[in-house]
Amino acid sequence: MGSGYSPTRTQAIHWGEARSGMTIGAGDSTLLGRLFARPELAKIFSDRARLQGLLDFEAALARAQAGCGVIPEDAAGKIAEKCRAELFDLDALGAATAKVGNPVIPMVKKLTALVGGKAGRYVHWGATSQDVMDTALVTQLGEVLDHTQASLDGLIAALAALARKHRDHPMAGRTFMQQALPISFGFKVTGWLSALLRARERLGELRPRLAVVQFGGAVGTLAALAGQGRAVQKALAAELKLGVPDMPWQSARDRFAELAAQFALLCGTLAKMAGDVALLMQSEIAEVSEPVEFGRGGSSTMPHKRNPVAAAAILAACEQVQALAPLMLRALGQDHERGTGGWHAEWLALPEIVVYGASALAAARALAEGLVVDPERMRANLDLTHGLIMAEAVAMALAAKLGRLAAHEKVGEACAKAVAEKRHLSAVIAENAEITDAIGAAALKRLFDPAGYLGEAGAFVDAVTRAADKALKRRDK
Amino acid sequence: MGSGYSPTRTQAIHWGEARSGMTIGAGDSTLLGRLFARPELAKIFSDRARLQGLLDFEAALARAQAGCGVIPEDAAGKIAEKCRAELFDLDALGAATAKVGNPVIPMVKKLTALVGGKAGRYVHWGATSQDVMDTALVTQLGEVLDHTQASLDGLIAALAALARKHRDHPMAGRTFMQQALPISFGFKVTGWLSALLRARERLGELRPRLAVVQFGGAVGTLAALAGQGRAVQKALAAELKLGVPDMPWQSARDRFAELAAQFALLCGTLAKMAGDVALLMQSEIAEVSEPVEFGRGGSSTMPHKRNPVAAAAILAACEQVQALAPLMLRALGQDHERGTGGWHAEWLALPEIVVYGASALAAARALAEGLVVDPERMRANLDLTHGLIMAEAVAMALAAKLGRLAAHEKVGEACAKAVAEKRHLSAVIAENAEITDAIGAAALKRLFDPAGYLGEAGAFVDAVTRAADKALKRRDK
Amino acid sequence: MGSGYSPTRTQAIHWGEARSGMTIGAGDSTLLGRLFARPELAKIFSDRARLQGLLDFEAALARAQAGCGVIPEDAAGKIAEKCRAELFDLDALGAATAKVGNPVIPMVKKLTALVGGKAGRYVHWGATSQDVMDTALVTQLGEVLDHTQASLDGLIAALAALARKHRDHPMAGRTFMQQALPISFGFKVTGWLSALLRARERLGELRPRLAVVQFGGAVGTLAALAGQGRAVQKALAAELKLGVPDMPWQSARDRFAELAAQFALLCGTLAKMAGDVALLMQSEIAEVSEPVEFGRGGSSTMPHKRNPVAAAAILAACEQVQALAPLMLRALGQDHERGTGGWHAEWLALPEIVVYGASALAAARALAEGLVVDPERMRANLDLTHGLIMAEAVAMALAAKLGRLAAHEKVGEACAKAVAEKRHLSAVIAENAEITDAIGAAALKRLFDPAGYLGEAGAFVDAVTRAADKALKRRDK
Amino acid sequence: MGSGYSPTRTQAIHWGEARSGMTIGAGDSTLLGRLFARPELAKIFSDRARLQGLLDFEAALARAQAGCGVIPEDAAGKIAEKCRAELFDLDALGAATAKVGNPVIPMVKKLTALVGGKAGRYVHWGATSQDVMDTALVTQLGEVLDHTQASLDGLIAALAALARKHRDHPMAGRTFMQQALPISFGFKVTGWLSALLRARERLGELRPRLAVVQFGGAVGTLAALAGQGRAVQKALAAELKLGVPDMPWQSARDRFAELAAQFALLCGTLAKMAGDVALLMQSEIAEVSEPVEFGRGGSSTMPHKRNPVAAAAILAACEQVQALAPLMLRALGQDHERGTGGWHAEWLALPEIVVYGASALAAARALAEGLVVDPERMRANLDLTHGLIMAEAVAMALAAKLGRLAAHEKVGEACAKAVAEKRHLSAVIAENAEITDAIGAAALKRLFDPAGYLGEAGAFVDAVTRAADKALKRRDK
Repeated sequence: MGSGYSPTRTQAIHWGEARSGMTIGAGDSTLLGRLFARPELAKIFSDRARLQGLLDFEAALARAQAGCGVIPEDAAGKIAEKCRAELFDLDALGAATAKVGNPVIPMVKKLTALVGGKAGRYVHWGATSQDVMDTALVTQLGEVLDHTQASLDGLIAALAALARKHRDHPMAGRTFMQQALPISFGFKVTGWLSALLRARERLGELRPRLAVVQFGGAVGTLAALAGQGRAVQKALAAELKLGVPDMPWQSARDRFAELAAQFALLCGTLAKMAGDVALLMQSEIAEVSEPVEFGRGGSSTMPHKRNPVAAAAILAACEQVQALAPLMLRALGQDHERGTGGWHAEWLALPEIVVYGASALAAARALAEGLVVDPERMRANLDLTHGLIMAEAVAMALAAKLGRLAAHEKVGEACAKAVAEKRHLSAVIAENAEITDAIGAAALKRLFDPAGYLGEAGAFVDAVTRAADKALKRRDK
Repeated sequence: MGSGYSPTRTQAIHWGEARSGMTIGAGDSTLLGRLFARPELAKIFSDRARLQGLLDFEAALARAQAGCGVIPEDAAGKIAEKCRAELFDLDALGAATAKVGNPVIPMVKKLTALVGGKAGRYVHWGATSQDVMDTALVTQLGEVLDHTQASLDGLIAALAALARKHRDHPMAGRTFMQQALPISFGFKVTGWLSALLRARERLGELRPRLAVVQFGGAVGTLAALAGQGRAVQKALAAELKLGVPDMPWQSARDRFAELAAQFALLCGTLAKMAGDVALLMQSEIAEVSEPVEFGRGGSSTMPHKRNPVAAAAILAACEQVQALAPLMLRALGQDHERGTGGWHAEWLALPEIVVYGASALAAARALAEGLVVDPERMRANLDLTHGLIMAEAVAMALAAKLGRLAAHEKVGEACAKAVAEKRHLSAVIAENAEITDAIGAAALKRLFDPAGYLGEAGAFVDAVTRAADKALKRRDK
Repeated sequence: MGSGYSPTRTQAIHWGEARSGMTIGAGDSTLLGRLFARPELAKIFSDRARLQGLLDFEAALARAQAGCGVIPEDAAGKIAEKCRAELFDLDALGAATAKVGNPVIPMVKKLTALVGGKAGRYVHWGATSQDVMDTALVTQLGEVLDHTQASLDGLIAALAALARKHRDHPMAGRTFMQQALPISFGFKVTGWLSALLRARERLGELRPRLAVVQFGGAVGTLAALAGQGRAVQKALAAELKLGVPDMPWQSARDRFAELAAQFALLCGTLAKMAGDVALLMQSEIAEVSEPVEFGRGGSSTMPHKRNPVAAAAILAACEQVQALAPLMLRALGQDHERGTGGWHAEWLALPEIVVYGASALAAARALAEGLVVDPERMRANLDLTHGLIMAEAVAMALAAKLGRLAAHEKVGEACAKAVAEKRHLSAVIAENAEITDAIGAAALKRLFDPAGYLGEAGAFVDAVTRAADKALKRRDK
Repeated sequence: MGSGYSPTRTQAIHWGEARSGMTIGAGDSTLLGRLFARPELAKIFSDRARLQGLLDFEAALARAQAGCGVIPEDAAGKIAEKCRAELFDLDALGAATAKVGNPVIPMVKKLTALVGGKAGRYVHWGATSQDVMDTALVTQLGEVLDHTQASLDGLIAALAALARKHRDHPMAGRTFMQQALPISFGFKVTGWLSALLRARERLGELRPRLAVVQFGGAVGTLAALAGQGRAVQKALAAELKLGVPDMPWQSARDRFAELAAQFALLCGTLAKMAGDVALLMQSEIAEVSEPVEFGRGGSSTMPHKRNPVAAAAILAACEQVQALAPLMLRALGQDHERGTGGWHAEWLALPEIVVYGASALAAARALAEGLVVDPERMRANLDLTHGLIMAEAVAMALAAKLGRLAAHEKVGEACAKAVAEKRHLSAVIAENAEITDAIGAAALKRLFDPAGYLGEAGAFVDAVTRAADKALKRRDK
């Protein structure tokens, strides 16, 4: 390079041409992947699983068509028998895919050859590539959603338990990251929980919309099936235990886009929770910490470090999900009966969205289950502002006499004085006859107890955790 | 400027300091705004409407608190009486907002002064700024959703009518923008319609989640209300005809984020429809056109132009909505009990999302209602490929004899020959004894009639339009 | 509404039909706008400025064409004379724009009428609407960039001064929000400064690419000018003090997209700085605060609050800029010789990007100029970890004897012990003969002085602030 | 599942636990990857290359430190000797990474053990994990940029050749996808070329900013190096043939974000080009096609299809790049001296951005080099509007007599008449005495020749292709 930028390498680093071992996606990396993607989720999108998904469609299609009398019964059996990924050469399929544009075309060709004879004539009868790929994807997404549901329920249960345990443990509520008024830690957890219950509700609404077969033939009319189209569509859906859509949806992609949007919403709530945890773990606050384990969250140079690595990994995965979800929204704008590029863009974005999203959820569950909480430190931090955090309590007590705004201003002046003179707010107020006369010394003392100013926090904890119980019970049935 | 970039102006262009007349947002511009934002939607976010929304909260709060015995009955009346936007100086409020960070603080101060006397003591009792702003916003969003619902139903009705009218008018189905197989224009419209019915379903699911009051006081505990918090919350919700949430949600923002996501989803479908219209309007295709009106879609230099201006404006507004919705998803990650910046970011993004989105929807309705369709041109364009578009039909007929893949390849060869020799596919096939023997001349002739190869198109039109009728009827009851 | 969601309003809120007063964009709001958009920036995109920009093009075009002999000299004068925004009815132009799709068509019609006679024949000669709108926008962007440059230089100067002042004031360096090792506050500021110097460099590279005229006629060929096209293009650029591009760029939009990308980059750095400030302002850290002013950053219910409102407003504006910049990147994909929707999407996004971005920059400058820094509190916070923050210093001293990794582990064990026993790290280490023997008591004592372990912090401050001086000086010449 | 969504699989699909074979990222898939990611680019981010990059840093650091006298000379040799990826167990490192949060910590531990003895004491001296990872990434990005530069130059050369070849071949210029005025195909290509020349310029500006070492120790102060920090930084940069930054940049990430932004800009231009190609390949337009190859772009069901698969794959990859680039912009907002999550998010996004982006560029080059152009069809399509496309030419000729606007309206009426009566515009105009008298029959005839109305198209082709030659020549020197 003329610019003098030609980095050296002590070693050659490129070995061979085989595709396997590529790790453009960090989740696919042996080195980094476990931080961001659970293996049991990643496997749903392994090459063999991808291929098997396509073959499962072809097998189900043959059975469905035999059932409808469209193809001979014995052809279906012979086709299904060869729909096994291990009979195929992934590398050869991949090479052909690069040329023709999708993996179904070479897969069908090879499957037809494998089946051979008369039965081979009926492979992929009346279907188009997108039917196969979309429906296989729907099935893979179903597996992801099963995992998601389990993780979400586990997270909900863990947070409900945390909320109950710390229902009455006071801590600083913070707005704009400033200590504002006391809350309880249970109340804070309940805020996360409430959002997750709504996420659960939304996923429940989505599932029947999403879990449907795509089967339309070249342009969605099923014309190749000579009048049997809708019957086969229905039988195929039954074979795959999927629902029947009102019509094929090869260029109406809102089902996938909605799923992406819901994962982005869910990840937003996970990021809120992980962000709060990281903030509470700051050296200066230290109210919670990630599960302690030897060596966890260390540094390569600082012997004392215990970093919030789970929170960081969750935040990073959620960033990726939130970055890719908009691609799925834009991909809704696909032209005519099959999009030019929009469909392919989904291939890149959607598996990442669901795997990173579901993995972040699983990590959040583990974080919630192992979260170390320090109620003493929470209580101690409430004293850091030297009484300022109770200013509203004093102002409201005073408001009964002076009116809200006047009381607000009066107490505000006392706060400014306390800060300027570096004294406790209660000491400054004790000198202010107007305030002490209005409220009374005993009442004033009580007003400076954070535990006495938690309002409805406990009641909200109770209401939301009860709702969580109910939601989880419904599922157990 | 050193760079020599110091543009000249023949005229001074800056007049005075008044904020009104700013048009950073193109939708606010007198010159451009009507292309992107309907006035009746834009008005929901005018300054006076914004302010009145805040005041409505204060009035309702006072009434609710009087009903619960928290403040005197007559104070409520006196407060409500002054909750009128025209009593306030917007410019002064705006100047104070810039300093303190939100408009509620100066508004409450002014309102307290306006009410005066004993009643003035009870203004904004136990509430915090965010309670006022969030709840006012929920109410404004309700107005937007009413408009959205009406537009969406209108669009659904218009598309259902179009689909029925053109149920059996054949046109080219296009995949990758290549002519693929025949569809009917009714079938194409039905694809848009089906996605919109799902959008309608989603909006219905969202509404009860969204239409709830936000009332929590400084950190969500309602501590300032001394045990009356939840009672007041409930009464306040009743006053405003809103629902009661399970707990305050000042830093759990998924309700707003879900709304944004749904508008992005909806706009994705609108962009698909507008994009298809623009493609079909190409000079070389010319199968549909926007409603004809004198001067519409003209050019400043080309006398013959009739541009798809409605489609372009819809596409642009949808881009804006889809760009801003992700901001709302990220804004979910708000710290602790009130976000630092995240809350304010919502103020910028959410009104634009809903106004541009709902306006694009209204424009799409008008486009659908006035769309000019040319079935003759559609039919004529089916002949442009000289029979190639019917290749699948021939191949499937041949497949019964030869098997699917062999037939596909045989017909593929005939297609290549037809292209190379610039002849009609039927002529090339007529010379191929293997094919003609297998299918028969009469059957072959029928196979080249696009209208005979529409498969289930009509049945899907029927199913989806019936579903549309049902959805609209449910609402009319 | 069947859903029972029909919010009440105590007052009617919609007055009249005039567009002015729309505030869909929060920056356009009298109530909220001053938080996010500086008036002197917003005015660049007022309706009158927008219109005047279009008229300035027409005037300059006429003069340029007269100079080239394309139109009569006196026609140019008569045209230029009428190119004054106040002669036009904005509302009428806006109404026509909604119909025809852009404001140039009705503006040219009206201008032609105003000029009248023989001169009127030559209005808008050989130009197309996009020529007018793009070039006017380039000129407006030039004004924004002048403002940006001034703010950026001011911010750079303020940060350089801060960095020098606090060059040797130790504070905790924090990684993953955990106290890690000491830095100086000057060093932290220098990190922001260094990034801003690169932002300044990039803007300098962009400007000559951006500050060029767009003039191509209907499709970019200037065919209507009968061979005089390039001469007029050059003369027009000279009239407007703009550069001449290699060719018209009506559907090659990378100039605008690059500007958007650079504003998003700049806003990313501003968000980093504002985020650090907000974190340092936390009640528990309290090392810096925003400029103190009476009433600033208060709360409507908490008398003691001093919120980081400037940081919050900067963060929010930067979110908006970063949300909209990707729209400009996608809008690069415009079809053929003028985009369908992509061009219009720019109208919505670009003014917001530059006004909110440049306003956030101006706000960041004010924040930097008024930032209140508390070096004592910084020093005190270094003691919060009871010596842990100096663990690396001890480990590296020990490494000379034991090797790096062994020393790291040894000190790590001491850290764990100190935490478990709630003792100062130096006390635990004092008991460890292996360590004390290796390092020596006096050296150990020095190792626990944060001010003695700042490494190259001061040198980096010096290098970067010198570079800042040099950059600013270059400009002053 | 209660929802009945439990998809069946005919085969088990999960084999073993080994990470390799994960293909969450479609580019990593054997089946799909070749459509989106070139192997030579993907390999830069293979696990072994990732690991070797980390080890190269450690080797270079040891050599640099030996050169500065910080560690013994022979230690450096012994360390460098073990910096070979094949000596490490990737899976074990990956497992440890999941626990501690980054791969450097276990790698350093293992390397220390491998080196052993006295030399082992000096492994990773004074460095922190991020130094290693960032610098290794910079080196990998340098390899990507070398590839990018070569592809970009190849694309520029191919387009310059295309532009010259078709400099004077007329085709329809299209605005809003409507035929507007004639251009030449060379002129259209030149529009793509001009934007790519600017992309090249930007990459040149970026490179010296990006190609710098990151070396700062735990918080950027290099305190562990006891005064030798900057000397080692400089020597290390020299070892790695990288530049020396003004200061460490562990939380000032604009270098990476700028790279991402530039790739998004570049991909925007590639998407414009691929989009134009796909539009021109439509069955109804058919003016260009992708390189013809047997089986390429076929369909699994339609024998006649030749889909624009290269364009679709480019568009999809560009969508992914444009979706992920904003993540890098947001990741600028990293807290304090090392971000919590923001840094990790870069690990996910940046390799995808550069590999998919550079692969799309390489694909675009191949597309340009093999593009099949049909000038005859282009010429024929100019006749599709029956003369309307020449309306401006007639109007401008008439304008000399009547004035521009009057001529525009007069010709506009003729156009409307031609459309209504389905006649050629020249025929309608021939009947209009006012026009024929003004222009003359012979001149009118010439006006309807598209090749005679190309304006400056050829001149712009010449100017831009000359600039391309110059740019490429500069590099060859």
